Amino acid sequence: MMSLIITLIFALISIAVAIYLFFHLNKKEAGTQKMVEISKSIEEGAKAYLRRQNKTLAFFVLVMAILLWFLLKDFRVALAYVFGAICTASASFFGMMAAVKTNVRTANAARKGLAEAFGIAFNGGAVIGLSIVGMALLGITLLYLIFGPKGLDIILGFSFGASSLALFAKAGGGIFAKAADIGADLVGKVELGIPEDDPRNPAVIADNVGDNVGDVSGTGADLIDSYIACLISAMVLGRVLGIEFIILPLLLGAIGIFSSLIGIFFVKTKKEDPRAALNRGTFSTCFFFTIFAFPLIYFLGLGLKIFFATFSGLIVGVIIGLTTNYFTSINRRPVSKIAEASKTGAATNILSGFSYGLISVLPPVVGICVAILISYRLAGFYGISISAVGILSIVSMIISADAYDPIVDNAKGIAEQSGLGEEVIKIADKLDAAGNTAKALTKGFAIGAAALTVISLFAVYWKLVGIENLNLTSPEVMVAVFIGALIPPFFSALLILGVQRNASKIIEEVRRQFREIPGLLEGKAKPDYTKCIDIATKGALRELILPSALAIIFPISVGLLFGKSSLAGFLEGSIFTGIIFALLMTNAGGAWDNVKKYIEEGKFGGKGSEAYKAAAIGDMVGDPFKDTAGATINTLITVMSLVAIVFAPLIIKYALFK
Amino acid sequence: MMSLIITLIFALISIAVAIYLFFHLNKKEAGTQKMVEISKSIEEGAKAYLRRQNKTLAFFVLVMAILLWFLLKDFRVALAYVFGAICTASASFFGMMAAVKTNVRTANAARKGLAEAFGIAFNGGAVIGLSIVGMALLGITLLYLIFGPKGLDIILGFSFGASSLALFAKAGGGIFAKAADIGADLVGKVELGIPEDDPRNPAVIADNVGDNVGDVSGTGADLIDSYIACLISAMVLGRVLGIEFIILPLLLGAIGIFSSLIGIFFVKTKKEDPRAALNRGTFSTCFFFTIFAFPLIYFLGLGLKIFFATFSGLIVGVIIGLTTNYFTSINRRPVSKIAEASKTGAATNILSGFSYGLISVLPPVVGICVAILISYRLAGFYGISISAVGILSIVSMIISADAYDPIVDNAKGIAEQSGLGEEVIKIADKLDAAGNTAKALTKGFAIGAAALTVISLFAVYWKLVGIENLNLTSPEVMVAVFIGALIPPFFSALLILGVQRNASKIIEEVRRQFREIPGLLEGKAKPDYTKCIDIATKGALRELILPSALAIIFPISVGLLFGKSSLAGFLEGSIFTGIIFALLMTNAGGAWDNVKKYIEEGKFGGKGSEAYKAAAIGDMVGDPFKDTAGATINTLITVMSLVAIVFAPLIIKYALFK
Repeated sequence: MMSLIITLIFALISIAVAIYLFFHLNKKEAGTQKMVEISKSIEEGAKAYLRRQNKTLAFFVLVMAILLWFLLKDFRVALAYVFGAICTASASFFGMMAAVKTNVRTANAARKGLAEAFGIAFNGGAVIGLSIVGMALLGITLLYLIFGPKGLDIILGFSFGASSLALFAKAGGGIFAKAADIGADLVGKVELGIPEDDPRNPAVIADNVGDNVGDVSGTGADLIDSYIACLISAMVLGRVLGIEFIILPLLLGAIGIFSSLIGIFFVKTKKEDPRAALNRGTFSTCFFFTIFAFPLIYFLGLGLKIFFATFSGLIVGVIIGLTTNYFTSINRRPVSKIAEASKTGAATNILSGFSYGLISVLPPVVGICVAILISYRLAGFYGISISAVGILSIVSMIISADAYDPIVDNAKGIAEQSGLGEEVIKIADKLDAAGNTAKALTKGFAIGAAALTVISLFAVYWKLVGIENLNLTSPEVMVAVFIGALIPPFFSALLILGVQRNASKIIEEVRRQFREIPGLLEGKAKPDYTKCIDIATKGALRELILPSALAIIFPISVGLLFGKSSLAGFLEGSIFTGIIFALLMTNAGGAWDNVKKYIEEGKFGGKGSEAYKAAAIGDMVGDPFKDTAGATINTLITVMSLVAIVFAPLIIKYALFK
Repeated sequence: MMSLIITLIFALISIAVAIYLFFHLNKKEAGTQKMVEISKSIEEGAKAYLRRQNKTLAFFVLVMAILLWFLLKDFRVALAYVFGAICTASASFFGMMAAVKTNVRTANAARKGLAEAFGIAFNGGAVIGLSIVGMALLGITLLYLIFGPKGLDIILGFSFGASSLALFAKAGGGIFAKAADIGADLVGKVELGIPEDDPRNPAVIADNVGDNVGDVSGTGADLIDSYIACLISAMVLGRVLGIEFIILPLLLGAIGIFSSLIGIFFVKTKKEDPRAALNRGTFSTCFFFTIFAFPLIYFLGLGLKIFFATFSGLIVGVIIGLTTNYFTSINRRPVSKIAEASKTGAATNILSGFSYGLISVLPPVVGICVAILISYRLAGFYGISISAVGILSIVSMIISADAYDPIVDNAKGIAEQSGLGEEVIKIADKLDAAGNTAKALTKGFAIGAAALTVISLFAVYWKLVGIENLNLTSPEVMVAVFIGALIPPFFSALLILGVQRNASKIIEEVRRQFREIPGLLEGKAKPDYTKCIDIATKGALRELILPSALAIIFPISVGLLFGKSSLAGFLEGSIFTGIIFALLMTNAGGAWDNVKKYIEEGKFGGKGSEAYKAAAIGDMVGDPFKDTAGATINTLITVMSLVAIVFAPLIIKYALFK
């Protein structure tokens, strides 16, 4: 009880600090008339999108809740599901609000210098990180206080609600963001040769809105659903396996929040590279988490093994982040090799980027495997679960650093559109470069965390349904794994095609505006921004439905048709290819992005060269790879695992072939 | 004994017919002076490449044979290995010779009309199909006559030899072919806007040579290694499971040859589309095989179940071929959708092509899964093996149709380079279009066959090493599957990077020649063809070594380090992603190829339009996807499975962790 109250307190502190920072930020100056105007249009576009998205989702969540209630005959699961969805939706809405407020203030502060702009941008990120994680921990702890250890199955409904909302947010936001991005870039940069974020481009505001709804609200939602799932699955496994101190994951979460608060305090810069400041934040959070976790686990009498399992997750998270960084970083071999390949055109740029993406899958997967083996040796499946908790404990810091990226990206956009001059844009560029690096690290982290989490969920599933043996020499199991392995690639294809369809429409619209609005290219007339936002919104909402629904329909169908063992195989299969495709797409996309930046810096002919044109095409291919498909697969496999767990009673009872 | 003699006779008939057709072809006119000249340079280039390749490989095969001898302490396995390698190498050399002779004669016949040209081209394909399959069946039957049922483990060495040679041939030939293709296209078509196969292009002969060494000798080698592996693995399983009539697979092979001979007879055309003639050949072969297989199995008293298992493989082969055809065919929705996406540039072309490639994986994998389940229900793992035999029984017809494609491709090239005029080129185009369709079908077939074959090999492995349970809820197995799943993507990356490095060098060389040879672009001077062939050859041989060696080193290391169960999981993992990536790359590549053709036909602006430029980039990306990586993965997973089986005794004895 005492521990639960401590957890509650830390969750509340996290939220309180977030609110304080939010109001503190809000007091800063927003800048010139023009800047305020642009910022307002971004804010309105983002709000309009989220409102429409949430309306669509509210309907879906309601249907799902009623289904849960009727099928599982448990009103509480349905309620927890709705609660989870609302928590995630409101946290991501609040995060998005914080981001749009921070963008313009960062741009304004950049007029005074790097240090202040960086401080504001990162604080904006911290608001998002702290509020989302605080809300999540609060939600779980409250439900646990109400339902107790026997009610963990109900709390799984909370996780399912949070994850399905995260899936929608990522898929919809990702499709919106990348369709707008491609649409803006293709006509603006490639066809007409006008700069990025140029106010003449009709899709430029849609692009900025996309950064917010895609990257901020999407990414927060993505990490948080792994976070919730891993805390709950560790507790469920703790109960199933008879671990004494079930709520250890919650306490580790509380410690994680505390360490992140300290870590955030360390993220300050005067003159140095903001990259270093961000990394210092992450590493000091890891350090303090370790320092606090050790005595906690020790004094609870849980033994060193549990501590080392926690620690192994943390280490693997860092390793994955660093290798991701290697494959996508602008100063490293892969990016410079892909840039070199761009000299001979887009085809060789694509081929080498894709190949390095394939290779980049190796080190993180080996890392994940090592973490699985070590933590399993230390404490069985509970060890794997706890290592996932370890990697995710510092999630507030991770989300903070992650959300920093779209904030500075937007700030740069605002600076360019309001004509703040070369000097300011240079500072914005520096901030942006640091953001890209931070993002590569956190994306690696997110995928590693998701991998350990889904394996922990997988263990929950087969323990709950009572499978002790899933024999891979049996053709039925083999086939089930094979079919499961098809889902992540299929799902990715649907999302990418969605982006592409959506982008085509935006491209046509942008071309139309340049053709039909006289004086637009010369800067004498204003484009119709709203039209592009509108097209992107409608398209995203239409395109997200099929893939998201499949994530729920597939596992239920497999379970009901072929029974619980086949469903277990199916989940395993989706985990294998899910992680591989997520890493491939994320890293290839990140690398292509930085190849373009690398050439922009003047390598291989610089801007305007043939290599640059090739790199721009690579970047456009990479955008939906990394920010739509790659980033959503995590959530897909988490949702599918949760669906299997939540619907397990039904599947056991009604499966056609058992 | 009687049955073995019948098999021997059919194998010899197959070879005899091939030789007869070869001499018959050789008597046809080769055409103008110019044509003979071009044909000679292609022949010399191809021979030079194969000679150098075989020299490199001879060294490797020798080392491997000595290793086998010392490690397994069985001289006979080493000998069978060398015999397998030599059989495959010589069959593929003979095939390549037949192809280069047929190319020019097809071009010459095209001056008289479609019907005769088609007849010659297809007969050339048939020479290759019949000779390779005849050699393979002859080799296995001879070894079986010598060593008997107890010597099947030795005959596995033969299969290993054939497969490792196939791996080299595919990887090396694929790298050569696609590097030359990209090199020729990128500078010629994209940069300078000169037509395909233009004699001014310094890489044009290298490109033609590539079609022969990559597509002809490579593809033959690829299918044949599955063929050999599936026959032997079915016999081994038959012995292990105590099936009465062990040599049924050999007899089915003999029937397959007989049916193919009839089928080949049906491939004639007068005025109709050559596509229809090719399809008639495939379907009539299937039909006659079924007609003959039924009484054979029935009178041997093996029961209807075995017959239906055989039949299920055949049906699945056809289904996979047809769906592959759907996703890559020029008249279907995917290709027209990708073409439409090309309007907005290369990025959207790549994104939608890749997405349709991902989706195209679904139907064939479901087909494979259905075949596995049905044939397993019918006759256990032996059923799966026999269904692989079923799908591969008609392999001579498949290779014939497959080899037809590069022959007409080359004929078209020769026609263009010798200036045979519009009319002839139009006929060549028609032949080529039919070749592309035939190839899509046969590639689907090859992947389906490889999938069933490796699952059959997998069964042989775990039966031999005595694993009855491979529990996927155990983290060790999970990790092993995961690591195995990494290999095909990693391997693909190495090959694509190899192509790309090699292509870059050729591009530089072609650009250099256009820059430095005065009058080259105006057609007043002759380019230096040999230089490009030389670069392509050296590059291919350098690039093939690492990936091919890994295919052998990886499974042995996993087995020796982590034991036989981990190796089983590793193989399973590689099968899952291997098939997915093979289908993805093959189909996406095929679709991109036809998208370009589709636009060339005048859609979306036709040749020279923005859509066309985008499609040309997609085609270049697709080339190594389909013809280098995608086509080699089959062989990779077959080789890895065979390595595991052949080295099983060593692994059981010396594994570090068991």
